Amino acid sequence: MPGDSITRDYGLVVWLTGLSGAGKTTIARNVQRLLAQRGRRTYLVDGDILRTGLCSDLGYSLADREENIRRAGEVAAMMAGMGLICLVALISPLRKSRDKIRAQLPAGRFLEVFVNAPLEICEQRDPKGLYARARRNELANFTGISSPYEPPLSPEIEIRTDLRNVKQCMRPVFELVEQALAQESL
Amino acid sequence: MPGDSITRDYGLVVWLTGLSGAGKTTIARNVQRLLAQRGRRTYLVDGDILRTGLCSDLGYSLADREENIRRAGEVAAMMAGMGLICLVALISPLRKSRDKIRAQLPAGRFLEVFVNAPLEICEQRDPKGLYARARRNELANFTGISSPYEPPLSPEIEIRTDLRNVKQCMRPVFELVEQALAQESL
Repeated sequence: MPGDSITRDYGLVVWLTGLSGAGKTTIARNVQRLLAQRGRRTYLVDGDILRTGLCSDLGYSLADREENIRRAGEVAAMMAGMGLICLVALISPLRKSRDKIRAQLPAGRFLEVFVNAPLEICEQRDPKGLYARARRNELANFTGISSPYEPPLSPEIEIRTDLRNVKQCMRPVFELVEQALAQESL
Repeated sequence: MPGDSITRDYGLVVWLTGLSGAGKTTIARNVQRLLAQRGRRTYLVDGDILRTGLCSDLGYSLADREENIRRAGEVAAMMAGMGLICLVALISPLRKSRDKIRAQLPAGRFLEVFVNAPLEICEQRDPKGLYARARRNELANFTGISSPYEPPLSPEIEIRTDLRNVKQCMRPVFELVEQALAQESL
């Protein structure tokens, strides 16, 4: 009986991938809030917060970033194994690392959300000033500038955050989750 | 609103430390079962299971073992942050690594359980055949044989598993947990 005693039902992993500034955390928080209001048990794995704890030993080399994503996937699987809806907001630039996590989960339990806005828009937003630093060569391996981003080939959903407001972006993700949960209980 | 939406109440970390074969996992599983029967939400972090997932990148050098313990502590803090009672069954040989985790948690939320049996007894039990392998020099850094074990100086409780049966060993740990939870609700 390792693991959890809350429930035997498997939850969901909702994996939000996209460039820095695309709006992953904003969407994740809003979807989380709405799910919580509906009585759903949720957990949010945020890239920045992960790095202050479980991944505090990691840097920003490609290998370290991949390890960061691997651990986020392990935590997400742990939470989903407890029946929670685990939202993950992480650039996660490489297709193969996202696909690896999908492959580890039961079918239909990994929802890939491509949070998409053109690089120029993300760079204009630059909420953390990271693009400016990357352009000044102060940050190595910055996704979109000096490191690749591989968009998902067949995400469960794609959200263009430059064309819609937060509420419009968040709603289809929420509905996707509700659909996945409804299928489960059939 | 990162993290969890289940509850704002902080849970507990019950950290079982001791030699291989001392009985950590057996006690943890029994305590978990009893807590679950009482409706408590629990999670068990087991050293062996951790190594198949979150810590699959780590070996058995002292540095890797310390990192293994650090991550177990992060997961435990995550679970306790969600209001769960997180039991951790891990040799965790070094005092400073256990104390570091204690220091990261709110006061009274880390219960150190010293699961104690003399080395000779643990070696006789040898449930996984590891002592035999360590004696044949097939395992490097094996706690108690070729690597140190530092017993806790002031654990919340010490259980001598060579002097009592499972039920007798498990009961005081369960009561310690219930006490800590009762104090919380005062």
